[in-house]
Amino acid sequence: MSGPLSGSVVSREVIDRPVLVTYRAVCAQNQRSPYHRVGNVAREDAVLSTMQDVPLLISRILTHGSAIHGTSQVTTWTGEDEPHRRSFAEIGARAAQLAHALREDLGVCDDDRVATLMWNNAEHVEAYFAIPSMGAVLHTLNLRLPPEQLAWIVNHAADRVIIANGSLLPLLAPLLPHLKTVEHLVVSGPGDRSLLADATARVHEYDDLIAGKPTSYDWPELDERQAASMCYTSGTTGDPKGVVYSHRSIYLHSMQVNMAQSMGLTDEDTSLVVVPQFHVNAWGLPHATFMTGVNLLMPDRFLQPAPLAAMIESEKPTHAAAVPTIWQGLLGELTAHPRDVSSLTQVTIGGSACPPSLMEAFDKLGMRVCHAWGMTETSPLGTVARPPAGVAGTEEEFAYRLTQGRFPAGVEARLTGPGGERLPWDGESAGELEVRGPWIAGAYYNGPGADPLRPADKFSEDGWLKTGDVGTISADGYLTLTDRAKDVIKSGGEWISSVELENALMSHPEVAEAAVVAVPDEKWGERPLATVVLKEGATATFETLRAFLADESGIAKWQLPERWTVIEAVPKTSVGKFDKKVLRRQYAEGELDITRL
Amino acid sequence: MSGPLSGSVVSREVIDRPVLVTYRAVCAQNQRSPYHRVGNVAREDAVLSTMQDVPLLISRILTHGSAIHGTSQVTTWTGEDEPHRRSFAEIGARAAQLAHALREDLGVCDDDRVATLMWNNAEHVEAYFAIPSMGAVLHTLNLRLPPEQLAWIVNHAADRVIIANGSLLPLLAPLLPHLKTVEHLVVSGPGDRSLLADATARVHEYDDLIAGKPTSYDWPELDERQAASMCYTSGTTGDPKGVVYSHRSIYLHSMQVNMAQSMGLTDEDTSLVVVPQFHVNAWGLPHATFMTGVNLLMPDRFLQPAPLAAMIESEKPTHAAAVPTIWQGLLGELTAHPRDVSSLTQVTIGGSACPPSLMEAFDKLGMRVCHAWGMTETSPLGTVARPPAGVAGTEEEFAYRLTQGRFPAGVEARLTGPGGERLPWDGESAGELEVRGPWIAGAYYNGPGADPLRPADKFSEDGWLKTGDVGTISADGYLTLTDRAKDVIKSGGEWISSVELENALMSHPEVAEAAVVAVPDEKWGERPLATVVLKEGATATFETLRAFLADESGIAKWQLPERWTVIEAVPKTSVGKFDKKVLRRQYAEGELDITRL
Repeated sequence: MSGPLSGSVVSREVIDRPVLVTYRAVCAQNQRSPYHRVGNVAREDAVLSTMQDVPLLISRILTHGSAIHGTSQVTTWTGEDEPHRRSFAEIGARAAQLAHALREDLGVCDDDRVATLMWNNAEHVEAYFAIPSMGAVLHTLNLRLPPEQLAWIVNHAADRVIIANGSLLPLLAPLLPHLKTVEHLVVSGPGDRSLLADATARVHEYDDLIAGKPTSYDWPELDERQAASMCYTSGTTGDPKGVVYSHRSIYLHSMQVNMAQSMGLTDEDTSLVVVPQFHVNAWGLPHATFMTGVNLLMPDRFLQPAPLAAMIESEKPTHAAAVPTIWQGLLGELTAHPRDVSSLTQVTIGGSACPPSLMEAFDKLGMRVCHAWGMTETSPLGTVARPPAGVAGTEEEFAYRLTQGRFPAGVEARLTGPGGERLPWDGESAGELEVRGPWIAGAYYNGPGADPLRPADKFSEDGWLKTGDVGTISADGYLTLTDRAKDVIKSGGEWISSVELENALMSHPEVAEAAVVAVPDEKWGERPLATVVLKEGATATFETLRAFLADESGIAKWQLPERWTVIEAVPKTSVGKFDKKVLRRQYAEGELDITRL
Repeated sequence: MSGPLSGSVVSREVIDRPVLVTYRAVCAQNQRSPYHRVGNVAREDAVLSTMQDVPLLISRILTHGSAIHGTSQVTTWTGEDEPHRRSFAEIGARAAQLAHALREDLGVCDDDRVATLMWNNAEHVEAYFAIPSMGAVLHTLNLRLPPEQLAWIVNHAADRVIIANGSLLPLLAPLLPHLKTVEHLVVSGPGDRSLLADATARVHEYDDLIAGKPTSYDWPELDERQAASMCYTSGTTGDPKGVVYSHRSIYLHSMQVNMAQSMGLTDEDTSLVVVPQFHVNAWGLPHATFMTGVNLLMPDRFLQPAPLAAMIESEKPTHAAAVPTIWQGLLGELTAHPRDVSSLTQVTIGGSACPPSLMEAFDKLGMRVCHAWGMTETSPLGTVARPPAGVAGTEEEFAYRLTQGRFPAGVEARLTGPGGERLPWDGESAGELEVRGPWIAGAYYNGPGADPLRPADKFSEDGWLKTGDVGTISADGYLTLTDRAKDVIKSGGEWISSVELENALMSHPEVAEAAVVAVPDEKWGERPLATVVLKEGATATFETLRAFLADESGIAKWQLPERWTVIEAVPKTSVGKFDKKVLRRQYAEGELDITRL
């Protein structure tokens, strides 16, 4: 008897756990047949599962994909005539080599963090598999973050190694003096190495480092709940928060992605992964595709509309995944410079809702857009907007596609109202979405040795994630999000949607822009403040706008704002979103000229 | 802080386990940076996964299916004009009622075994979910077994309750005097209750028992490794062996069934489940369909070709699952009485290999046959014969479809040769298939309080299941089975396929039947004995048959039998298979007239 399985196949530990004892205690209050004993001890005659206790590990996905689907390919765009191609078998061999190099040459051990500052490419896929499979923790760095946040995150995670693309050295080099734990830099792909001349960390060439290493690795039999990878949220308030995925959560999430009602791809497919690998595990696609042999098409740094259109035409992906802004850009490009993109029939859109007009435009191109909702804390697959059976070809179908989608079996959902009450799934009651499941975060990483963070505004007492998203759930489980929780106005125990008021105001012909924010109110707790940007020559008064809301837009009387102001422009964040923090501050500090109706 | 999740979300137990310590011990031999400690203690600065620790439970599949897919249906054939229809929402409500009744009226508690002696129907689906979800163990009884085996199995499992269909009381009633642990009988559906007049167990009507009970149940938060259901193999030698599935194994298996490369069904589909629910969880379909809303069409006791054809025509299933003999019968029926069966495009065949002629006949009907391989010990999904990308429309495609199929990511496979050596995946080296995975058995149930059985001929020392099947695996992971391990002849460290020799012999125009068995040989260990049934008027001699094997069938010289005998008929089992045990015994006892060439 040897090997990690032998001890646990028929282990009795299962029946000793507190959860079961609790259940037994309930049982014990009722009648029992005489030949059963119950209580706080393991029963000697308990029926034990006879199943093997095989942990769900990322190394198993890798060895499966590189053996059974060894001929499937990771194609990386290079901007040259011919993209770079590497088979899953080669990826498997090189991941083993990378693990050997990290272990033997760089001393990576235990749960050391190995960070990546990389585009989507074959080497990043190798890092995705090698680092968790050897027992270390992959930490994907978001190259869109401000440099000071990036440095803070590297120090907080205590990364020992950073693997970086050469093209990102101009971003990395200025950070180096601020990084406290990084001992090694590994550079892959073209880029000016002289930028690292002053680095105190040792600098390695990726390909040199792995050259000559064995092409297989005796992957350790880890606990499936061990940390596998981590990703920090770019929180708009406070420090970034680290979400730490386990082997178990990633494995289960990969299975879900592959289910027919999620993305449901097979080895006949090629997936263009535009969503960055530093963004929530690229929505799980690198792991999921190695389970089923789906080919990967990786754009590297070529994320502009023209090269994306070119790679679709030449590499003929059947599926693609990206945020709406990418699709908007691609649509413009295809309109200006038509290309044959007929291979691409399935498009997964997440990150934010897809405008209906964009969805219709892609329908006309033969690309079927499918909404998915998720966040860093949900791995990210939370919902997928595949319409239910029986609505194909009807108007209802489009309405279903505009929702955020339906929950898979692994994600439990509930809506919580402003007073903490549970709301029904009736398609009308709006509440904050809370979710539970094996690939949903229950805490945030809090640095070496510290207890994890469980802030009360993010996690309920019974362990559910508070998503911060507000919306409704229909009787058949389709989620429609309307607001961020911080943007709804809590007025006398009821919620008023600021988004709904804004859209109604902006539909008035004389209103250029409008933002609605919650302001404190002695009687109601909070009330809406309407801030309006009028078009030139507008004659509308606050009274006529208020009447317009009530009469033309069907806003309930109790939801109508009584505080109004005209502003020159709505303040915006660096990415162009309404910056309501500024308006709230201006109101609090008396900088706005308020009219009360 | 309360609820079963609170304690384990960020538990540190992960890093205390022996597996990790072993890995650390390896790490410790190499260089480490000074700010890490390694050794046999949990490191204080370990990175813990921040994922919720939500167990994979059958109750979660039920609540998901009955809420999100509440309008999907379980349709049960009744033999009347109109089948019986019940929505997933109703199934969910009735499963809760059944659990209340079992708990409160029948005292079912802990891991009590509740057996079912039922056809495929809505009530059996309710039992599938209610019994494991409440923490008890579902024990499906195989109504095709000889009565004495059935009684042995009920006693061995110590079933407290049996839920039986009324139509099966003629089978159940004679067993009752032999059942030692059964306290309650619950009867569902039409049938003569007077057969139970002498029963000492209490008799209940299913519908009366659940009537008026609450339609929801506070399902306990069980350990996912707890026993959920059990199924005995009808072993050809020795006592039947019990396989005990866990919540975890069933949940993971259900996800796999739903992956696009397995059955990949969605709520647009209806699955005709001909494979009995007492046969390895009906190949996982009841669980898998509640995850995704696939409608279930259940034939109850109407398994004859005519009603099957009628239900396909009227209910229009898109998918069906059954063993080849069912399909053979259906094909005959459809040839004699053509019907519109065009809805049925996907057919999963398991249990034994589908003859190529049958596959081609179904292709012509527009039904795409897909092989799957598995056994009671594998839950059962072991392989699925979907051809790889790129072969559609070629001759290769049909060859791939005739294999047993490809392993999914959750099933690891290896081939072991006659000397215990590992064989390559080259499509030529034949060995015994061994498998490992989270839904593969690692032991057999051994009765209350006893340690599980791990016979050395069924489980390897490192915990893999020895399937007893012999075959090859291609480089791209397709399994082709050729023999049962007990039917191969181990000659001088090499294997000879008895099936190959038999097929070659039976292709001779004067041979009616032939069976080849291993017999002891002093020099080679084992050698083949050819037993031949000649057609009337045959003139072939053993010499001409032996030459035929070598010259016409390409059998290697060292594989040619030297022991020959003519028999009147090959002995057969009750289900018509060659009974080689009899031949081996006859040879051992000198009853056969052997010629040595």
